[in-house]
Amino acid sequence: MSALTPAQLKTPVPSDIEISDATTPAHIRDIALAAGLLDDEIFFYGKTKAKIDLSVRDRLSHVQHGSYVVVTGITPTPLGEGKSTTTIGLAQALGAHLGKKSFACIRQPSQGPTFGIKGGAAGGGYAQVVPMDEFNLHMTGDIHAITAANNLLSAAIDARMFHEATQKDKALFNRLCPPKKDGSRVFAPVMLRRLKKLGITKSDPKDLTDDEITRFARLDIDPATLTWNRVLDTCDRFLRGITIGKAATEKGHERDTGFDITVASEIMAVLALATSLEDMRERLGRMVVGLSRAGDPVTADDLGVGGALTALMKDAIMPTLMQTVEQTPVLVHAGPFANIAHGNSSIIADQIALKLVGPDGVVVTEAGFGADIGMEKFFDIKCRYSGLLPQCVVLVATVRALKMHGGGPTVTAGKPLDAVYVDENLELVAEGCANMMQHIRNARKFGVSVVVSVNRFATDSDREIAIVREKAVEAGAIAAVECNHWALGGKGAVELAEAVVKACAAPTNDFKFLYPLEATIEEKAREVCQRIYGADDVVFSDLAKAKVATFTKCGYGSFPICMAKTHLSFSTDPSKKNVPTGFTVTIRDIRASVGAGFLYLLCGDIMTVPGLPTRPGFYDIDVDTATGKIIGLF
Amino acid sequence: MSALTPAQLKTPVPSDIEISDATTPAHIRDIALAAGLLDDEIFFYGKTKAKIDLSVRDRLSHVQHGSYVVVTGITPTPLGEGKSTTTIGLAQALGAHLGKKSFACIRQPSQGPTFGIKGGAAGGGYAQVVPMDEFNLHMTGDIHAITAANNLLSAAIDARMFHEATQKDKALFNRLCPPKKDGSRVFAPVMLRRLKKLGITKSDPKDLTDDEITRFARLDIDPATLTWNRVLDTCDRFLRGITIGKAATEKGHERDTGFDITVASEIMAVLALATSLEDMRERLGRMVVGLSRAGDPVTADDLGVGGALTALMKDAIMPTLMQTVEQTPVLVHAGPFANIAHGNSSIIADQIALKLVGPDGVVVTEAGFGADIGMEKFFDIKCRYSGLLPQCVVLVATVRALKMHGGGPTVTAGKPLDAVYVDENLELVAEGCANMMQHIRNARKFGVSVVVSVNRFATDSDREIAIVREKAVEAGAIAAVECNHWALGGKGAVELAEAVVKACAAPTNDFKFLYPLEATIEEKAREVCQRIYGADDVVFSDLAKAKVATFTKCGYGSFPICMAKTHLSFSTDPSKKNVPTGFTVTIRDIRASVGAGFLYLLCGDIMTVPGLPTRPGFYDIDVDTATGKIIGLF
Repeated sequence: MSALTPAQLKTPVPSDIEISDATTPAHIRDIALAAGLLDDEIFFYGKTKAKIDLSVRDRLSHVQHGSYVVVTGITPTPLGEGKSTTTIGLAQALGAHLGKKSFACIRQPSQGPTFGIKGGAAGGGYAQVVPMDEFNLHMTGDIHAITAANNLLSAAIDARMFHEATQKDKALFNRLCPPKKDGSRVFAPVMLRRLKKLGITKSDPKDLTDDEITRFARLDIDPATLTWNRVLDTCDRFLRGITIGKAATEKGHERDTGFDITVASEIMAVLALATSLEDMRERLGRMVVGLSRAGDPVTADDLGVGGALTALMKDAIMPTLMQTVEQTPVLVHAGPFANIAHGNSSIIADQIALKLVGPDGVVVTEAGFGADIGMEKFFDIKCRYSGLLPQCVVLVATVRALKMHGGGPTVTAGKPLDAVYVDENLELVAEGCANMMQHIRNARKFGVSVVVSVNRFATDSDREIAIVREKAVEAGAIAAVECNHWALGGKGAVELAEAVVKACAAPTNDFKFLYPLEATIEEKAREVCQRIYGADDVVFSDLAKAKVATFTKCGYGSFPICMAKTHLSFSTDPSKKNVPTGFTVTIRDIRASVGAGFLYLLCGDIMTVPGLPTRPGFYDIDVDTATGKIIGLF
Repeated sequence: MSALTPAQLKTPVPSDIEISDATTPAHIRDIALAAGLLDDEIFFYGKTKAKIDLSVRDRLSHVQHGSYVVVTGITPTPLGEGKSTTTIGLAQALGAHLGKKSFACIRQPSQGPTFGIKGGAAGGGYAQVVPMDEFNLHMTGDIHAITAANNLLSAAIDARMFHEATQKDKALFNRLCPPKKDGSRVFAPVMLRRLKKLGITKSDPKDLTDDEITRFARLDIDPATLTWNRVLDTCDRFLRGITIGKAATEKGHERDTGFDITVASEIMAVLALATSLEDMRERLGRMVVGLSRAGDPVTADDLGVGGALTALMKDAIMPTLMQTVEQTPVLVHAGPFANIAHGNSSIIADQIALKLVGPDGVVVTEAGFGADIGMEKFFDIKCRYSGLLPQCVVLVATVRALKMHGGGPTVTAGKPLDAVYVDENLELVAEGCANMMQHIRNARKFGVSVVVSVNRFATDSDREIAIVREKAVEAGAIAAVECNHWALGGKGAVELAEAVVKACAAPTNDFKFLYPLEATIEEKAREVCQRIYGADDVVFSDLAKAKVATFTKCGYGSFPICMAKTHLSFSTDPSKKNVPTGFTVTIRDIRASVGAGFLYLLCGDIMTVPGLPTRPGFYDIDVDTATGKIIGLF
């Protein structure tokens, strides 16, 4: 691995794309071979990206897993506190400075916001994935595959409702199982899944009774129950609410619906939680799009499209190998929305990385949002489905965010920071440490060791940092160190890496989930709200109560739950900083991601399509046509 | 090159995907090196696809071009007459049987219809591109890139109209050129393009007068003039007509619009006609989305997004190298809709292939639809922008289609063929040859040699074939041969290949375009309608007349024209077979693809989103999760 030399580190730190452009990445084959992959397991996508065949897990089945570290954060300011940067920087420190085999496993960023107001998600400064433009734009096409699959299912839904509205049962059946030249008919294999679900054990279409023909051929979808939206990876606010079917050819079959951004698709959550191609096939097939008028769930396989969705997702199931600025390996895979889904990168990427690094190596994976959301879902959803348990939680904190929690004025993106955030203020820091301490105690409830990483800014004073470190240990962290990987690369995270290695070598772990799957939906929600958020109680709206009844009847009661809550507060009110008390969480609605395998509980309005500002980021983006290089991307 | 051996050719010919699966493709690096590419010029996408760097054209600038052959067809039945198959089969015969350096250049198929009712576009039988599933699904992501770019522009349009509706001119300007910390403001480079267009020569925002600020900052788009639709590569008929902006966050700014299928995007036409990265950047920037209320065209660069679109399309500009079942090289690039656009693969792919094969080699490229549309647009649009002129037109004919033109009953997809199409019927064939003869004479009007390829079916009689060959020569073809590449691979097209090589060696060419660019829009349309279609005249609706005036005023009068007409007849009525006479073509409307560089004249309703039938093809598609292979795809 090639560590950054002092000569390569510039001050002030240049923009992310300038750093990326100044880097000469290794050919990805060299990264792959150094990581222990074989040529047959590598599918190149250009010279700096490669997809990795899942078969590597089988080849290395005898190898013991490496240490498994999850990076999460305290309740952040809207500016973010450097969770991705820490994930990358820590992996650089381990791989390029401590001589450990290391992998960073991160999410693929949504492309849409790249052109709006948000920076990239490749880390930043001297702790980033390169080339950052290839990481942020298209990558290896996984999100595009999800867009295609999600929208094929959408088209199938509306086309089916249209055809059912204009055909009698027998005509429908005759078209679904058309006679061959000899008059015989066959069921497509996917139809046998629907027959099985209906309890019809026949395999020859001619044996179906009239009643069975009706039950098989007519899905009878109730449009009012449809929860499956179309998606695009574009910040197109005007698609949030739309009316479809307005062309004359659709004969008045109009319907109100909407688009989400692609990363909010259930298919993204399926990709992140699938453990094999077969598992993904089953999950895609059982995704529920709505209910029949009789109240039965209608699935992708009922629509005959589960197999085609799998065909579209066949390559996307392979994680993408890229590299950090210090040529340590990174697996990029999946990027589920951190509110309506679980916000963690894929199980498969973590599994592959843990095999590749072997027992002496370390895999650093990231959980989205603050630890109350991302870490809790990492444990209760992702780890439950993967069976993998981490040895260490790295909790990222900044003096800036702690000052905000301690009572500092509001922090707003795009506006100058108040002076308290740049001058020493020990009182605010000390007061705000309560937020960090609550996150530490929460992590300890799962029985996992905690190392606090204080992401140091130039304006932080030594005394401020000292307070944070002291309070972290007081709350149960086994170490608390400061980091400066953004400016120094892996070298700036060596102390953190050493603390993490030590924590992994002497695990204090006695892992336990927060709730058992057998608990009721209400009980699960209460556990999360009271024990993680510190709420007095949780209440369900009438709509949510009705959904509890419906989903329990459908057999979804034993899914883990996924809270859709703001990440800017422990509570559901983003303005309540630090450790709010005396609040109640209201569950407004509940939706089922049956293929992904969780219920998500809506605690507020969740915006699933960002908008574009008056001057979007795209104004600065162009290609230097002489060199082919992208310019102006962050 | 590895020719198919008799032992590999099965009878009856298996399905396309069975043949594709039974083939062991060479590693694409081997195909690339054999074609004369260098490692640095190859960007792998897995093991069977690679993108080719445009720099190869510069490296080989001293090399003389190979022969350039365009494959087109007579007016087809709805079943298609084997144009793609002939393109591939001819390239196989040249490369794997005659020892010539050859390339086939073809379009990337739209993915949407793959799941609906249509087969793939990779050729078929033993004349196809493999692996056909990789060809048909995602390929190297070019269509996905177009979807992303097209929809970013859509989002930019609606977001801009929204922000303009809620802000005064100065506020708009302040947001577009926000002050830096020192109070100074700068224009983004893309803004200088708009200033130049407005005739404002200032480069410092502070120097603008109030009037200039208004003109610069307020695009004042007239929603009624918007012609830019959103796109998806999905057969989703319910998106043909939609109302957007219905969510509360859009505050009542609703608008009726629609989606097209991605291949209908102007960006696809731009990709196909661009000659360099720089040329593509300029074309993307000058795409017109609608008019201001003052009647001025509003472009992508006016919206500030031309550079970002180029960034999204940076990799798509590289053609994708794949291979035939006989391991001869194929370049796949672009796939513009053959009606509202020109329906030909990319100029860049043809240029690269012509350099790679060198003076003794042959490049076979395909023009979509029948020759009245695809070939005419190939010459008058594509060749005009590329400067490349073909030595030979291969015109594909089938006895089946000629019988239909001769008076045979209607041919409908999915229904059994009438007996006249399988029994010998010399009269119908002889009568229908008039259609073929008209296409031959049309090709000769451009001054290019014509070789007729009779795509032979098992049911065709020798006497039927003899009539076709005789009539072809009578009309001016320099050769007419029968082919059977579908069943026999390149071996079945050796005679055709020999005829093509001979035609290219002794060109009869005296190439001329059908019309000069200086002609008026009406004159150009009259040339095409009278000289190619055989119409008595062409008339323009009042709307079309108004568009002529608008576009002429905007300076678009010198663009080549692109007729949007049915391919099932020389006339605008698809039921009029053979050589209709005594008809007039009515131009209903005209639209401008200013970035692509043509006007398209609508001669009827053009459907730009296919629908899904009651039993779409996706019912049969799945992945064998044990092997990872896709099954049921055609």
